[in-house]
Amino acid sequence: MRTAGSTPVPKQDRSRATRRRLLEAAVACLAERGWAGSTVGVVAERAGVSRGAAQHHFPTREDLFTAAVEYVAEERSAALRTLLSPARMIVGPARTYAVLDALVGLFTGPLFRAALQLWVAAAYEEPLRERVVALEARVGRDVHRMAVELLGADEARPGVRETVQGFLDMARGLGLANLLTDDGARRSRVVGQWTALVDDALRPAPYEH
Amino acid sequence: MRTAGSTPVPKQDRSRATRRRLLEAAVACLAERGWAGSTVGVVAERAGVSRGAAQHHFPTREDLFTAAVEYVAEERSAALRTLLSPARMIVGPARTYAVLDALVGLFTGPLFRAALQLWVAAAYEEPLRERVVALEARVGRDVHRMAVELLGADEARPGVRETVQGFLDMARGLGLANLLTDDGARRSRVVGQWTALVDDALRPAPYEH
Repeated sequence: MRTAGSTPVPKQDRSRATRRRLLEAAVACLAERGWAGSTVGVVAERAGVSRGAAQHHFPTREDLFTAAVEYVAEERSAALRTLLSPARMIVGPARTYAVLDALVGLFTGPLFRAALQLWVAAAYEEPLRERVVALEARVGRDVHRMAVELLGADEARPGVRETVQGFLDMARGLGLANLLTDDGARRSRVVGQWTALVDDALRPAPYEH
Repeated sequence: MRTAGSTPVPKQDRSRATRRRLLEAAVACLAERGWAGSTVGVVAERAGVSRGAAQHHFPTREDLFTAAVEYVAEERSAALRTLLSPARMIVGPARTYAVLDALVGLFTGPLFRAALQLWVAAAYEEPLRERVVALEARVGRDVHRMAVELLGADEARPGVRETVQGFLDMARGLGLANLLTDDGARRSRVVGQWTALVDDALRPAPYEH
C-alpha cells in the first residue's frame, strides 16, 4: 500500500508481499471452493493481483496450490509454537487439557479446511498426490513432535507414542466432523473426557515411581 | 445377465438391478475421481447402462450421487450388523479389540473414500450440503448406537458416551490418514493401545461393583 510521499517500498519487499497475498488467497479459496473451484485466475482476482503477476510467481495451478499447502503447514507450525509457552507454565491435568484443546483447535479452522480440500483432491489427482504425501508426512511428524513436547510426554514408556498418535487422529476426525456444521458443543465434551484418558495414560503407574 | 433359453427376468427386477449397478458405479466413481470427476455420463458408461436409462433413474447428477450416499450409508450399516453376532460371543478386552478394529475397518475402505469425497464437496456445493448434513447426522447416530451395542457399553455411566464418540472420531481420522498412503501398520499399533484405554474407561471402577 504505497501512497504519494511515503517511503518507497523496495521492489523485493513488494514482490514478497504479493507472493504472500497470493498464498493467503489460495488457502482461502481452497477452503471455500475446493480444488475444483480453485484456479490461478480466481486466486489472482481475489488477491487483487494481475494474472500476469500471479503467473510470474506461480507458473502453474499446481505450483500455486502446492506452495499454499506449504504455507498452511508453516502457519500451523507457527500456531503450535505460540501455544508452547503458556502451557509449559501449568502442570498436571490442566496442562493436558490446555494442550489437547489447543491441538484440536488447529484442526477445526480454515487452515485445516484448505488442507483437507487439497488432501482429498490428491486422492485422484496424480501429480498432486506425490507432493501432498511428502508434505503431510513432514507436517505429521512436526505436529507429533510438538504434541509430545507440549504434553511433556515420555515416549520411552510403552504405549505413550500410540496414545499421542491416536489423539491426533481423533483431532483430525473432529476437524472432519466440523466441516459442514458447528460441532463445537459435542467436541468440548469429547475433548473433556479424552483429556482424562490421555492424562492417565501419560502418567507413570504408581509402581513405576 | 439373460441368456437365450433362461427364464425371463421380470421388468421390475431388471430395473432394480440397473439402479443398483448405477449406484455401485457412482460410489466407485466418487472414491476414485472425486466429485469434480463424477458425472451421470461417466457413471452410466462405467455401469454399462445407456445415458437415457441412467437419466430415467436419476434425472440429475445430484439425484444420482445423493442416492449413492444413501447407498453407502446402508452398506455401512449392513457391514456393522454382520459384525454384531461374532463379537457378542466374546467377553472382555478381546471383544473390545474385535469391535474397535472392525469399526476402524469401516472407515478405511472404498465406501468411506466415496463418502469423504462427497462430504468434502458438500462444503462448497450448496444444494449438496443440506442433503449430506441430514444424511451424515442419521448415519452418525446409527454408527454410534451400533458401537455402543457391540461394545456392551453402559451409557448411563458418566464419560462412556464421550469415550465412544471420541473413538469414532479417531476412526474417522484414521480413515483420513489412510487416504493417500497405506497406513495399516501404524493404525494397528494405535488401535491396540487405544483398545486398552477404551476398555478401561468402559469398565466400572472397582468401587462401583
